[in-house]
Amino acid sequence: MALRKILVANRGEIAVRIIRAAQDLGLATVQVYSKADADMLAVRLADEAVEIGPAHPVKSYLKIDAILQAARDTGADAIHPGYGFLAENAGFAEAVEAAGLVFIGPTPETIRTMGDKAAARASAQAAGVPVVPGSDGVISDLATAPALAEAIGYPVMIKAAAGGGGRGIRVAQDADELATLLPQASQEARSAFGDGSLYLERFVPRARHVEVQVLGDGRTAVHLYERECSLQRRRQKVWEEAPARALPNDVRAALCASAVRLAEACHYRGAGTLEYLYDDASGEFFFIEMNTRIQVEHPVTEMVTGIDLVRAMIRIAGGEPLGLKQSDIVLRGHAIEVRINAEDAARDFMPNPGTVSGLTVPGGFGVRFDTMLYTGYTVPPFYDSLLGKLIVWDDTREGALLRLRRALAELQVEGLKTTVPLHMALARDPDVAAGRVHTRWLEGWLPTASFEGPSQGGAAP
Amino acid sequence: MALRKILVANRGEIAVRIIRAAQDLGLATVQVYSKADADMLAVRLADEAVEIGPAHPVKSYLKIDAILQAARDTGADAIHPGYGFLAENAGFAEAVEAAGLVFIGPTPETIRTMGDKAAARASAQAAGVPVVPGSDGVISDLATAPALAEAIGYPVMIKAAAGGGGRGIRVAQDADELATLLPQASQEARSAFGDGSLYLERFVPRARHVEVQVLGDGRTAVHLYERECSLQRRRQKVWEEAPARALPNDVRAALCASAVRLAEACHYRGAGTLEYLYDDASGEFFFIEMNTRIQVEHPVTEMVTGIDLVRAMIRIAGGEPLGLKQSDIVLRGHAIEVRINAEDAARDFMPNPGTVSGLTVPGGFGVRFDTMLYTGYTVPPFYDSLLGKLIVWDDTREGALLRLRRALAELQVEGLKTTVPLHMALARDPDVAAGRVHTRWLEGWLPTASFEGPSQGGAAP
Repeated sequence: MALRKILVANRGEIAVRIIRAAQDLGLATVQVYSKADADMLAVRLADEAVEIGPAHPVKSYLKIDAILQAARDTGADAIHPGYGFLAENAGFAEAVEAAGLVFIGPTPETIRTMGDKAAARASAQAAGVPVVPGSDGVISDLATAPALAEAIGYPVMIKAAAGGGGRGIRVAQDADELATLLPQASQEARSAFGDGSLYLERFVPRARHVEVQVLGDGRTAVHLYERECSLQRRRQKVWEEAPARALPNDVRAALCASAVRLAEACHYRGAGTLEYLYDDASGEFFFIEMNTRIQVEHPVTEMVTGIDLVRAMIRIAGGEPLGLKQSDIVLRGHAIEVRINAEDAARDFMPNPGTVSGLTVPGGFGVRFDTMLYTGYTVPPFYDSLLGKLIVWDDTREGALLRLRRALAELQVEGLKTTVPLHMALARDPDVAAGRVHTRWLEGWLPTASFEGPSQGGAAP
Repeated sequence: MALRKILVANRGEIAVRIIRAAQDLGLATVQVYSKADADMLAVRLADEAVEIGPAHPVKSYLKIDAILQAARDTGADAIHPGYGFLAENAGFAEAVEAAGLVFIGPTPETIRTMGDKAAARASAQAAGVPVVPGSDGVISDLATAPALAEAIGYPVMIKAAAGGGGRGIRVAQDADELATLLPQASQEARSAFGDGSLYLERFVPRARHVEVQVLGDGRTAVHLYERECSLQRRRQKVWEEAPARALPNDVRAALCASAVRLAEACHYRGAGTLEYLYDDASGEFFFIEMNTRIQVEHPVTEMVTGIDLVRAMIRIAGGEPLGLKQSDIVLRGHAIEVRINAEDAARDFMPNPGTVSGLTVPGGFGVRFDTMLYTGYTVPPFYDSLLGKLIVWDDTREGALLRLRRALAELQVEGLKTTVPLHMALARDPDVAAGRVHTRWLEGWLPTASFEGPSQGGAAP
């Protein structure tokens, strides 16, 4: 290991995760922090800590020169960006390398390509990875749309090129609907965005979100199988599993092989995730995008493969070869992760920062709780509401669900409202138990759910 | 699963462990407790709790009629005895069955046979399991001793039949020493114990303690490989690992096969452990005894096999078949457990009960902490000093040792002195790192050890 000291350019639970991985390699650690984060757990666990600015991210966790200065001042030789903040900023990766330091992640070129939707889609197609059938850019002549839609296959989604976040989207079930909706959509896009350009894409009504974890060293890559993250609220994942039980084995094999093709085609270095839509009805999968960083939900993959992903990232960044053949990676059992947020699920997920007056961490066989919390810690109001991730493992999914209920009942965060009641309700839901979910299932279910029921029999006060 | 409600006839961390396993099966739980234990964690986690008497074990955790009454009063249909207390009391197992309840463990006959040293040795010999070569009982005529010793092989141990706990033991390196020591030993035994009877046994100077975990359903049995527990103080294990890295693969295979032979010969039901001495020098292993219960150090086996042993015990007791073939059990990686006791290692391990004023539980990839502790809990002075067990796993032993240091640095039990400093010193010792240990290594090392060194760089305040 050529590295000696790692600087963590992030905060919260992922900063703790990275520090632990570095210490598990015997490396020294530097934690940067904003004024609002002086008391965070990662600051306590790190060997050194450097304040880099006030609470606002632009003035601290996004401030590249302050982070590089902290690295120079402490003699760190590598920087781990975590997720969010600067993790997928190609300019940051370049600046780190220009400063003579190691960026723990892929090359700036890979980050840039995969960060560009069109370039990523083109890379996927070139690597033989199926993408969502669509018009590949805006429709130059609306008269060609019917033939295009026929080739894509109905139902098709009409999207405003200038839209985003789900705005300006219409779904046509057949050619008649398309003929009606197309001029409406163009008209509306022109008035809403000042640009009437449209594109078409296959609409998958009940898609699952599946994603493949890859690891590469710039020369070869392997996959660590897939995760399913269909339970989402406002496009944020709330519950993740590995493996995706809905996938037939031949589909799983094809999906994972496609991910390795793309990772090898872009000489991928480090840990990355390829996100796909999966259509239960047809058995088809379609590449959406690649995240060129560690993912929040990486622990479920760690639990079913036994591979420490964050440590692997550091080793690869330190120049070690991957050291893993595909046949070394064996799936074992089933893991579920639920995100514990400082939010009141009974009040439309209102954020709920505050001080932790008591903390009981669940434990025992097959239970892991990755958290930034400790008793006495005050959750600042400036950042996202993720407090931690409860991960359970068992040899079967049924066993993992029972263990999740037990562990949720043990978990006590006093002083804050958390999403524990949401997850307890989900862990008891028959659709969740049967795996009958898709990416919009949760938002349909929420209005019907009750978070006031009794906790698991006797297991919590 | 025929069972509905499990009563836990134990206390401390193992009671918590059993409740978790029962809840992971969706079963209800009843915790019995002494007056001194009203605040213990297992009482909080269980669905119901029943006080069975005052602090003294004879009046509570050893009081069979009070425990059976609690089971009847709560409608429990099975009793898990944990370890210690009544766990290896054949009369208790009989009384449980006579009350129409299920004893979660082997039959009373198995407990009785294995609890009798001579009967256990005879059973092992009948099953072709090597035992420590010896005189098989007292030497009727001291004149036969030299020939016997020759057959056993030097060095031989001369033991007083009426002795115990290491008293009245002498070691003869050759025939001359035997001729000198034999009359002295007999004379001394007569004056010390009123009985001059002696027996002979092979002395293994630098033995390792290895033990094999077995699981059986009364018809078939499998092994879950072995543990090494050579680090002992006053014959108490303080640090355990799985697998035993000192064993060559062929020895491991023979050792584990011998354990299965004995388990199947006695129609073993539930989880059991066969303890052996292993002689590095000769590669020989010798059966010592079988523990017919769950063992304190069972989690290291769980970590390397992925099998929940306590849950398996409950399922088997509920009438389920074993459901495991030997080929299903695959060793993965390496696990280390260290016992966290309320003892001051710097003051000759003086017990140190008191109140936990703060608790930080280590976490992350490959870390498990099974404990009875919570903030505000007062450790009562009446029982053993085990507070919890820190277990780490990694794909290599070297990685597990680094992770152990990191996790020990994270673990903070405020208000009590614990054995964390002992384990930190061991985790850094070159002999421990190289695995150059035997059952008396620790007691030789203790006077040379310092528990006042710096904690792991930066990882603890």
